[in-house]
Amino acid sequence: MHPADPTDSGFADTPAPVTRREFVHGAAASAALLAMGGLSAPLAAMPGAMPAVAADRAAVLAQVAAQHDDTLRRLREWIALPSIAAEDRNYPQGPEHMARLAREAGFQHVEVVPTAGKSGVFATLDAGAPTWLAIYMMYDVKQYDPAEWSAPPLEGRIVEKAGLGKVLVGRGATNSKGPQMACLAALHAFRAANTKLPVNLVLICEGEEEIGSPNFRQIVFKPEVEAALKKCVGIIIPLGNQDPDGSVQINLGAKGVVELELVASGEKWGRGPTKDVHSSLAAQVDSPVWHLVQALNTLVKADGHTPAVEGFFENVRPLTAEQRRILDAAIPKRSEESAKRSLGVSRWIADEPWRESLVRLASQPTINIEGLVGGYTGPGGKTILPHRAIAKIDMRLVPDMTAKEALAKLKAHLAKQGFGDVEVNMTGGYDPTETPADSRLVKAMAATYRKVGVEPLLWPRLAGSWPGATFTAAPLKLAAGQFGMGHGGGAHAPDEYWVVEPANPKVAGMDGAARSFVELFYALA
Amino acid sequence: MHPADPTDSGFADTPAPVTRREFVHGAAASAALLAMGGLSAPLAAMPGAMPAVAADRAAVLAQVAAQHDDTLRRLREWIALPSIAAEDRNYPQGPEHMARLAREAGFQHVEVVPTAGKSGVFATLDAGAPTWLAIYMMYDVKQYDPAEWSAPPLEGRIVEKAGLGKVLVGRGATNSKGPQMACLAALHAFRAANTKLPVNLVLICEGEEEIGSPNFRQIVFKPEVEAALKKCVGIIIPLGNQDPDGSVQINLGAKGVVELELVASGEKWGRGPTKDVHSSLAAQVDSPVWHLVQALNTLVKADGHTPAVEGFFENVRPLTAEQRRILDAAIPKRSEESAKRSLGVSRWIADEPWRESLVRLASQPTINIEGLVGGYTGPGGKTILPHRAIAKIDMRLVPDMTAKEALAKLKAHLAKQGFGDVEVNMTGGYDPTETPADSRLVKAMAATYRKVGVEPLLWPRLAGSWPGATFTAAPLKLAAGQFGMGHGGGAHAPDEYWVVEPANPKVAGMDGAARSFVELFYALA
Repeated sequence: MHPADPTDSGFADTPAPVTRREFVHGAAASAALLAMGGLSAPLAAMPGAMPAVAADRAAVLAQVAAQHDDTLRRLREWIALPSIAAEDRNYPQGPEHMARLAREAGFQHVEVVPTAGKSGVFATLDAGAPTWLAIYMMYDVKQYDPAEWSAPPLEGRIVEKAGLGKVLVGRGATNSKGPQMACLAALHAFRAANTKLPVNLVLICEGEEEIGSPNFRQIVFKPEVEAALKKCVGIIIPLGNQDPDGSVQINLGAKGVVELELVASGEKWGRGPTKDVHSSLAAQVDSPVWHLVQALNTLVKADGHTPAVEGFFENVRPLTAEQRRILDAAIPKRSEESAKRSLGVSRWIADEPWRESLVRLASQPTINIEGLVGGYTGPGGKTILPHRAIAKIDMRLVPDMTAKEALAKLKAHLAKQGFGDVEVNMTGGYDPTETPADSRLVKAMAATYRKVGVEPLLWPRLAGSWPGATFTAAPLKLAAGQFGMGHGGGAHAPDEYWVVEPANPKVAGMDGAARSFVELFYALA
Repeated sequence: MHPADPTDSGFADTPAPVTRREFVHGAAASAALLAMGGLSAPLAAMPGAMPAVAADRAAVLAQVAAQHDDTLRRLREWIALPSIAAEDRNYPQGPEHMARLAREAGFQHVEVVPTAGKSGVFATLDAGAPTWLAIYMMYDVKQYDPAEWSAPPLEGRIVEKAGLGKVLVGRGATNSKGPQMACLAALHAFRAANTKLPVNLVLICEGEEEIGSPNFRQIVFKPEVEAALKKCVGIIIPLGNQDPDGSVQINLGAKGVVELELVASGEKWGRGPTKDVHSSLAAQVDSPVWHLVQALNTLVKADGHTPAVEGFFENVRPLTAEQRRILDAAIPKRSEESAKRSLGVSRWIADEPWRESLVRLASQPTINIEGLVGGYTGPGGKTILPHRAIAKIDMRLVPDMTAKEALAKLKAHLAKQGFGDVEVNMTGGYDPTETPADSRLVKAMAATYRKVGVEPLLWPRLAGSWPGATFTAAPLKLAAGQFGMGHGGGAHAPDEYWVVEPANPKVAGMDGAARSFVELFYALA
């Protein structure tokens, strides 16, 4: 999921490798939000007179509960079929199953869309409504090692999880089959209630999300897909957006990111050794590791954080008055104390107060070192002069920066500073995203959350990143965002889970998540 | 062994971890020395009239060959008993066996010397000669994994090794049981020839060399041991000093070294996180990795190699006229081309010519980064802001620097530059050593090498390091150095070997190595 709060650090406790996508689809967030009312009442029968739409709506909501066992069965069947692009696993069964799920949920037009890699699925459901909404799904999941799991990763076993309630454990439980199945369950409920959907839907699915969506544009920009998307008021990514405390955040955008490796080596430098040599030679032979340290040192200012790459701030657009207003409204609702505690941090950059540090978090681009590795890295020492060292870097970008621009500026900067030999190997990245607060999609999301009893926290820009620019940038310029009640965790890690029957009444279970989609469709109509 | 040439990099190809001691006791060196005559002739019968000493000497040398099988048997028995202090293995059998080897070789007084760790052995052989010589031995060996060996590590199997001839494979073969057994075989040869040793001997042995000799001073400075050592003209460390081409170098000293880790962490800094957090937080939270990069950057000048630690050069004594003369004589005998080829280096520091780069190698202290490790170090990226990063550093010291001084100056420098929170954890080190070229020991070594047909290359100071300062510094101030013909390799690595019957006639085998000790004893007398 999209963590509701970028000060989230729950991911750091997961035993398995955590990637950017883990962050996007990850587990709990830590924002301390307003206390909010219980969920049960608004989701139960509506009081008073009941007009036609309200009657339909009530019938649909009732069907969500009635279909509980069917939804769970469908989710388990899906989890039993893990599609893993990196392993060429369950292909073409993955997209075929995805297409079947779409057909069964009521999509009238369903087609598998070939790409240079794994096929996607494109589907439409025309309910004759005036409004079109797009839904993004992924049918692939992350690799897993059954030996690390306490329950079989493909069984979908229901277990009691302390503090959370009954959860379904399985690969893909929260990332992203559980939330996606909740969305599909909403459609099944409309069918079962024999009620027309209040919106038309475009479904766009891929099977390579876990390898960085290398062919996704081939699906999105297939002419009939693009044409369908252009009719939409926006696109939602089904996710369990709730923290364990029930809170929900709506992010109006996200920073972009460039991940890259800086590699200094004797080979490329033309100085120093081309293999590790004895460290006594440091008196005679240049060191590619010192070279890397000196190159790195040029990338941030003496304060240790402000990017010093030439021209880096050229296209940084300051926060708008509207964004500042949203921040001003949200900041008092977030607890500095709980953020510091959860992060293990005692001071913010430059000893700034909470408010300033959050403005900085939302507004500033960064250059971060994810990791350093070179030479001898084991216990104690080893007297070598290494021929090669690597810094793993990520740069976070704000509008109107682009990944391409940031990468080019970094390269130019290094060359100008005398480090043109240091290799810059980009491993991933994408542009920032923005979705207007006054878009129909965001308004409908906020109204839906309120309707089901949660006051969402609007936030101008997630400091984390997700590859949504495909939708939000030209030519589509769609409003886009993760949506859905519910909670899960352990994405990319063992014992991934999705809450089916929550212990905390403020958290939605599987049916509650499905009902939030029903409500969103009505809110958009 | 002490590599004859510090531009050696053979160690870098060994599959197992290589430590400082690997360098000191390591395999081949790459100096290109003068072509030299064959070995066989000088070691065979002497021509012409034969005075009494010469007759004795010839008888002793003849016994070396006669005892070949016994020497090999003793070596194999020793290799079958690996003492490993780190594993508490074969203790107290290790020192007991060492004591027995000394007794059998003719030492009259042999005692096991307890320490706070593993016991050492102290022995004396008083032949009634005017001259005393000390010999250092270690009875411990490095750990090993039999699965990585092509022959059982404790069997001492003789195998044909391409280009080298028949070698004995086993843990400790070259580091240091093979060379030490060659030295003991020389003593056995004197006994078998019923000939008095021309020198008296002090034997000092330890069993913790492979864990850094933490208790060695308890042996050396036991009053009767210290008193015995004070009578000596110097101390030799038996080693196979020959390169595969037969060449030998005598080093008149070695740089000291300090190995340490620099650790930057949120915990100690009081800034940044105390656990890894999501990298998007780089806009709000300080980075201990950037902090480490900035601290490192203060340690060398912009040239990327000159130490910039305040006061680092204060006690650097320039090369003496004598040292410069020795360098001037030696440099033309070393091949720049072959050094560059073996190191994979195309340019020396500052594009200096060969001569200047070798002067720098011998005379300059260094600060080297052995390794960098922090945050995510696997393939690709992981979007974290690490809470901790480590640089593994070694500093090489020249007289009159000391390890203690260099460490203190580094700490003071970091504190002054604003990096007082960066932990400085010393993991090992010792002071520089020096042995005068005109000492009896060095003269006798050189004469011996010449006698057996090798013109040794005198070198003022090894750029590598060995813990000889215990002997060379006050109060003992002994001349000290590795000595011995012969060749071995793979110290600390699988398939460690010692050449028993060389393919190259310029290289001594096991018996040739033993004969070099016989000759040294005569040369010293």
